[in-house]
Amino acid sequence: MTAYARLRQKFARIACLNEASAMLGWDAAAMMPAGGAEARGEQLATLAGLSHEFLSAPEIAEDIAAAQPETDWDEANLLLMREAHIRATALPRDLVEAGVRAGRACETIWRVARQENDFAAVREALGEVISLTRESAKILGEALGLAPYDALMSQYQRGVTSADAAAIFARYEVFLKDALPRAEALQAAREHEMLPPGPYPEAAQEALARQLAAAAGLKFSSARLDRSAHPFCGGTPTDIRITTRYDEQDVCSALTGVLHETGHALYEQNLPAAFHRQPVGEAAGMAMHESQSLIIEMQAVRGDAFLSHLAPILASSFGKPVTMGGLKRRLRHVQRSFIRVEADEMTYPAHVLLRFRLEQALLSGDLAVADLPGAWNAGFAALLGITPPDDARGCLQDIHWYDGAIGYFPSYTLGAMAAAQLMAAARRALPALDEHLGRGDFSPLTDWLARHVHGLGASLGYNEILTTATGEALNPAHFEAHLTARYLT
Amino acid sequence: MTAYARLRQKFARIACLNEASAMLGWDAAAMMPAGGAEARGEQLATLAGLSHEFLSAPEIAEDIAAAQPETDWDEANLLLMREAHIRATALPRDLVEAGVRAGRACETIWRVARQENDFAAVREALGEVISLTRESAKILGEALGLAPYDALMSQYQRGVTSADAAAIFARYEVFLKDALPRAEALQAAREHEMLPPGPYPEAAQEALARQLAAAAGLKFSSARLDRSAHPFCGGTPTDIRITTRYDEQDVCSALTGVLHETGHALYEQNLPAAFHRQPVGEAAGMAMHESQSLIIEMQAVRGDAFLSHLAPILASSFGKPVTMGGLKRRLRHVQRSFIRVEADEMTYPAHVLLRFRLEQALLSGDLAVADLPGAWNAGFAALLGITPPDDARGCLQDIHWYDGAIGYFPSYTLGAMAAAQLMAAARRALPALDEHLGRGDFSPLTDWLARHVHGLGASLGYNEILTTATGEALNPAHFEAHLTARYLT
Repeated sequence: MTAYARLRQKFARIACLNEASAMLGWDAAAMMPAGGAEARGEQLATLAGLSHEFLSAPEIAEDIAAAQPETDWDEANLLLMREAHIRATALPRDLVEAGVRAGRACETIWRVARQENDFAAVREALGEVISLTRESAKILGEALGLAPYDALMSQYQRGVTSADAAAIFARYEVFLKDALPRAEALQAAREHEMLPPGPYPEAAQEALARQLAAAAGLKFSSARLDRSAHPFCGGTPTDIRITTRYDEQDVCSALTGVLHETGHALYEQNLPAAFHRQPVGEAAGMAMHESQSLIIEMQAVRGDAFLSHLAPILASSFGKPVTMGGLKRRLRHVQRSFIRVEADEMTYPAHVLLRFRLEQALLSGDLAVADLPGAWNAGFAALLGITPPDDARGCLQDIHWYDGAIGYFPSYTLGAMAAAQLMAAARRALPALDEHLGRGDFSPLTDWLARHVHGLGASLGYNEILTTATGEALNPAHFEAHLTARYLT
Repeated sequence: MTAYARLRQKFARIACLNEASAMLGWDAAAMMPAGGAEARGEQLATLAGLSHEFLSAPEIAEDIAAAQPETDWDEANLLLMREAHIRATALPRDLVEAGVRAGRACETIWRVARQENDFAAVREALGEVISLTRESAKILGEALGLAPYDALMSQYQRGVTSADAAAIFARYEVFLKDALPRAEALQAAREHEMLPPGPYPEAAQEALARQLAAAAGLKFSSARLDRSAHPFCGGTPTDIRITTRYDEQDVCSALTGVLHETGHALYEQNLPAAFHRQPVGEAAGMAMHESQSLIIEMQAVRGDAFLSHLAPILASSFGKPVTMGGLKRRLRHVQRSFIRVEADEMTYPAHVLLRFRLEQALLSGDLAVADLPGAWNAGFAALLGITPPDDARGCLQDIHWYDGAIGYFPSYTLGAMAAAQLMAAARRALPALDEHLGRGDFSPLTDWLARHVHGLGASLGYNEILTTATGEALNPAHFEAHLTARYLT
């Protein structure tokens, strides 16, 4: 057996363990009774420990050094194997364990601190998390030849630097300053058609969510839809598990949520089968993944064409006068607000931008943890013109930093922008795209995505995929054009 | 760290992997979409492979040789560790793999052969399975100091030999010859009160099953009830997963099925927490496990006391005239029949006895595979006085032999007999037991079982548990007395 064949085999075994973890993670969120939590934690820790042990084994390094890939895909695969091995071995075990412990402790304190709006209570624990993350980022960066923050970013999305992201965000800040007040003015001048009040029975919402997810391409022969407190897409490519939650007063949240997760699911479902369980057969990163959920949820579903199809379906499913105007008011309403996860697509990048800047400053030490609330509120006011009334609606709202996840936030906006750019390219390639969406037919779009994004796995990077699919690397102009068309005309 | 402490740690890791497998196995039966089957197979194979690899590592043998257990429990634990290690290492890998392959191939052929009532089609494949099982049994037996068939039996239930079982079955054969015609005559002389016809809506059946399982002691904070084609109890002690299937024409099958699985679940739920994830903290074997499902389902639930409680509950839940007489006719009706899984508790042991004798003869070579159908039919006629009209209702009906499981069948009857013996002891210890059951209160019984069976884990063997709990090793007189009281008076 060649060194490369051995590597393929070893990575397939690691992938099997990770698949087991993915299924157990889904189960923990969607099925597990509370009493199972402790045992589940140990099961997952055992699987993660073995996966890490196998990935960091010295024989992996030997095989990587000796491997001779024959095709471009194999070469890309080997590159990703090497990077995964470096990530697994770069950090001293003590540091990794200290980081996990600090994150877990801080997250626990944060849950109470957020509830009680008490940043001081979590300050010290967050300081510990930041300090350990700084140390890890430095070591990882040296091993990977990246700046510390870029090393963290690349855990979630390879191939985009903080310099790239900074330029994109700076440009967006300028756009938003002009666009947001104009969008608000236009909106205020329009009629405020509302959706009829609930209840929208859960069972009917679920039936419709299944029907629309299937129409969007989710194969239920290889997928499930269940409930969980925090919706997500989990599982494995041939056994996708998406979850949602239902609100009987709101006909839209579960539906758009399911279609968002369906976008993620389609990516997984259409990954290249020939490289199943190989690093190159996985998705190209979290930003690219988010682009796939958002191209379905934000670009396709919230567009005029699909909403005109959806309104009568909702009306007849629930026996209520749901109109396209009501849907637009509910799904396409711009509003300055404090909570990221509730933000509209125009102001959302401002939330991300603020976090992107602050987390870099925390990591570099330019910003002391104690000064975070002030910096947050000042930054928020500068971007959106409103000041959080308290830290619970400010720097305490997101879990990310408190559980040690730094470098992830940019993926949200890199995803939203890539979605707009891909949609623009799909429209050029498929002149009848909106006619299809207007009939509830996603297949031309999803076929195009399968060919230009999903099927490429991680054989290309974020900007390379965008370049082959759209003719250019990420260009924020497409997202701006999308917002302009939807909110400023 | 001492050698024994290291062993405890290693076995806990193996147990974590096995727990992950248990959850994925439950998921495959109760949740997984069809498309996930292939990937799930590989995930389970990976986990089983690792579990086996860890269990058979040479360092385990070294630690076992060096370990110095301090308590009786630790000593029992070490003994079980040693046996598990011997089992994992005794067989050459080639033989194990050949056995798995042969079993899988034979099972596939069997599925069609049973459907088409064509024993000849599967004869050769079964021959291969028997021959490989014979070879394994010989090697295992030598390693464990047991006769070949006993080595197979002990995989499922330690501490009971085929000689023990043969004596028990021979005695039962005599009992049955006399009891069965008498039971039939008595039955025929009685009124045939029937349950009202269905439908019994599935949702109401499920609600009631949950209520009764909880009353029997199942903690839903650490358990789930779902649907699967073949009901089972899976999961882990703090996260039990039981399944059932519903038949809207039959109010009893799901209910009694859930209570049967609840009996298994209570055993797992009450295993000694201090030895969680250690061999000695597991159940004492499959026969003992079956005794716990049957003491709930057969002894407690089908007894007069509980049925008198159940009848009015069913009547009011379904708005139908369900009477105790109808329940007795449905749940306590003796009938000579061909299919084991549908047999009543009096004739069931005859089905098992036949298989017990035939599988020993197949293993020893005294019976050629080609002669199995004839031997089956002759044996069946001699035991129950009826001859299977075809092999589908004869030697083709059970999956066990065809997928390589030999030595399991006795557990069913050893379980039924232990259940009767334990119930008799519980009744002596708890004079008000039937009053409690008559109010739907299982707790005196299940508390007694937790103390005398569940909490002992595998620290004692099958007969030792019976001896400490009931004052004697397995004594078939209790089962006979139970059947006599229920069917012959």
